[in-house]
Amino acid sequence: MSIEKPNTRVLPGFMELLPEEQIEFDRIKTVIEAVFKQFGFTALDTPAIERVAVLDAKKATKKAVAAGVPGETPAPESVEEDAAAGETAKQAYRFEYSGVEQGLRFDLTVPLARYSAEHFNDLTFPFRRCHSAKVYRGEKAQKGRFREFYQCDIDVIGHNELSVAYDAEIPSVIYFLFKKLDFGKFTIRLNNRKALSGLLDHLDVKSKTKEVLRIIDKIEKISADEFNSSLRDLGLSEAQISTLLDFIHIKGSVNDILNQLKALGITNSLFMDGINELETVTSLMHDMGVEDSYYVIDLSVARGLDYYTGTVYETILDDRENLGSVCSGGRYDNLAESYTDEKLPGVGISIGLTRLFYQLREAGLIPCSRKTIADVIIVPFENNNIPTALRVSNKLRIEGFNVDVLLEDTPVKEKLQYVGKKDAPFAVLIGSEEEESGLMMLRFVQDKKLVKKTAAIDDLAACMRNSNVIR
Amino acid sequence: MSIEKPNTRVLPGFMELLPEEQIEFDRIKTVIEAVFKQFGFTALDTPAIERVAVLDAKKATKKAVAAGVPGETPAPESVEEDAAAGETAKQAYRFEYSGVEQGLRFDLTVPLARYSAEHFNDLTFPFRRCHSAKVYRGEKAQKGRFREFYQCDIDVIGHNELSVAYDAEIPSVIYFLFKKLDFGKFTIRLNNRKALSGLLDHLDVKSKTKEVLRIIDKIEKISADEFNSSLRDLGLSEAQISTLLDFIHIKGSVNDILNQLKALGITNSLFMDGINELETVTSLMHDMGVEDSYYVIDLSVARGLDYYTGTVYETILDDRENLGSVCSGGRYDNLAESYTDEKLPGVGISIGLTRLFYQLREAGLIPCSRKTIADVIIVPFENNNIPTALRVSNKLRIEGFNVDVLLEDTPVKEKLQYVGKKDAPFAVLIGSEEEESGLMMLRFVQDKKLVKKTAAIDDLAACMRNSNVIR
Repeated sequence: MSIEKPNTRVLPGFMELLPEEQIEFDRIKTVIEAVFKQFGFTALDTPAIERVAVLDAKKATKKAVAAGVPGETPAPESVEEDAAAGETAKQAYRFEYSGVEQGLRFDLTVPLARYSAEHFNDLTFPFRRCHSAKVYRGEKAQKGRFREFYQCDIDVIGHNELSVAYDAEIPSVIYFLFKKLDFGKFTIRLNNRKALSGLLDHLDVKSKTKEVLRIIDKIEKISADEFNSSLRDLGLSEAQISTLLDFIHIKGSVNDILNQLKALGITNSLFMDGINELETVTSLMHDMGVEDSYYVIDLSVARGLDYYTGTVYETILDDRENLGSVCSGGRYDNLAESYTDEKLPGVGISIGLTRLFYQLREAGLIPCSRKTIADVIIVPFENNNIPTALRVSNKLRIEGFNVDVLLEDTPVKEKLQYVGKKDAPFAVLIGSEEEESGLMMLRFVQDKKLVKKTAAIDDLAACMRNSNVIR
Repeated sequence: MSIEKPNTRVLPGFMELLPEEQIEFDRIKTVIEAVFKQFGFTALDTPAIERVAVLDAKKATKKAVAAGVPGETPAPESVEEDAAAGETAKQAYRFEYSGVEQGLRFDLTVPLARYSAEHFNDLTFPFRRCHSAKVYRGEKAQKGRFREFYQCDIDVIGHNELSVAYDAEIPSVIYFLFKKLDFGKFTIRLNNRKALSGLLDHLDVKSKTKEVLRIIDKIEKISADEFNSSLRDLGLSEAQISTLLDFIHIKGSVNDILNQLKALGITNSLFMDGINELETVTSLMHDMGVEDSYYVIDLSVARGLDYYTGTVYETILDDRENLGSVCSGGRYDNLAESYTDEKLPGVGISIGLTRLFYQLREAGLIPCSRKTIADVIIVPFENNNIPTALRVSNKLRIEGFNVDVLLEDTPVKEKLQYVGKKDAPFAVLIGSEEEESGLMMLRFVQDKKLVKKTAAIDDLAACMRNSNVIR
């Protein structure tokens, strides 16, 4: 009887990175978290497991609304059907433990809503939080779709009210962040749900707002004919469709668009609120130093979720428009109505980091050239050089360097292979010659040439700094 | 019909922190990760979900061994029984998805073993990895026991061989880390399983090694009588027990103990290997700059797991000995034998961060005085001061500060309450006076006194830096 070894491949839909990829993934995640901090967002960390009653509360609310329960507005919903499993993507990863039905979170918004309700009295509003963590969905197992993935979210939550000025701060965060991430030129697309909804009210098709917004959301993915016939199927007249198309296709600079919108002469108050908010938001973005060329008003941006009630955002990498939006979000009226009677309006965005990383890596935009986080590898040639190697490594750590010391008892040739594979910016080689002279051998690559320098132990740190090699 | 709100409390056994606690938790976690990096450990991030076949592989191996399958050595096992549920702590959080039995990981060692087997050809050995992440266990729901908790692990994995010098590097990491964490004086307790096992071999009770080690592991928790009678129950003679006790109770400086051990005249080769390794490890720790007063050889340290085969470590906070070991680990012969035929010896440690944080917080050792990660809060008194406030915040962010700008349209009194509650090191107040003069009002607390200074926008950053208030 022999023992069969279990399958060690990660489960389908899960991402697992090699060290050099992980270093780059972590670097990107660290940049995101640092920029969120720069804007005063405090990190939260909620359990990955929630009660099913909490996970499904919004759906319950929605069902109650459908059943005619008053005093509740429709809640966010964007559950994708998993045809294979016959269940929605968000209902996967459920189990019972200790008599409680529970499951893995499918986003970071439900946990934020629950957290805000539970800890309401201990929070200071407006409450700024960021959260970078893994979420779980029952996505179909196919390339680029993930069942476990990182979301990096920020939200500002008000109590009862939240100034529209925060709607301007959020795209400013996007601007600062994507400038820093350096994935190339990008464009933040802004719109306001009130403008769209107000127009539909003005056109007397208010009752079909949700369905129309969903069709608009698909405008880039379907043909003009499909688009028009979908609206016709909803019962819109040719005149209504034509007005809607004229509206969506208004193009130009921010000011051009705002002027054209005002010139439409639509007096619907929701519509006018939307236009005013767009004007305020874009004006404040200017005050925050967001360059004009990095954002546009795009009246076709609807965002599928009926969750959003005002400003909405999408972010497109100009050279990778095919990736779709890499950072999206918007304003919502009431975050936690399923969990508390307190009114908590908010505005936020989310980055699907795992998918973004995967796509950029596939596109060759993420080099992953760093094989180790060590700045320097210390190599004692013989075992009797280990004490000196340890003293050197200790000194360099105190000087702030990340130091890997190779302690394995192998031939020098193998040791140099290790140095070559790990490819740290520096190596310090220590053999009998170095021990005798007290001068260590420092090796690094500068201007594509291998440089060898000798330096006393106390001078190594300065020598490394002066080389300007450190990344 | 009214809608019942779901229970928003976290599930029993899960930790959820308020923002000011989370800031401190994250600070500690960041220190840990930074020190791991300083020693060249690259971070891994494996899926939280593993196949049940992978999670249970070690158990399967063990069962196969019990059933007489040759060529396999007993595998690590420390599954605690969950009396209530009738299942072991590690078997909780299992479910089926897409036809695969899967579950949440119960430690970071199984994922490391699977990862090392799966990606063997892409890794450079010795492979240094760190991993800070949540793991899941079906612990009983009681104060201080967690069902979801962070482990912060480091391991060095060799291929076929791994020098004992790495056994010295690991406690050096503990030393640097806990000095930096500043939880007070601590002591690293070192031992070597070979010394203990060799002694038992010498005493002719080799077949009972595992059981004896488990009793020794409890020595601090049970009375001397209980200890002796447990050994008697195992069949040890009074003479054997006496020799064992004499051995365990050898005390003194590292050199004293090593000399006493050598003077015992035991020629068992395993025993001698253990003594030699202890000598090498302590000598190299000295070379790494670990102060003598921070480590001892403690021959009673056994570590319950039969996983460990050489050096073992425990770390005690001197003023909080009751907390038990806060950082433990050791040397093992073969990490991934359940997953690959490659031999991968290693050495590592683990910190149970969630439990440690909880205990230190309960003991009043974690102040959580920082309410926001913002360095400065910008307060425009009126809405027409918002553009200036945004320009100021933008400038300060570029200067490297974390900036929270209060954009809510509320009375000044409420705005100052926000400033008071958030308690950032600095506040910048901007009203009509400041707009007219161009001099912003900077407020901070210095030497327990509230200081107010006026500064031009371009001088604010320097003014803040010169105050030496920033934490």
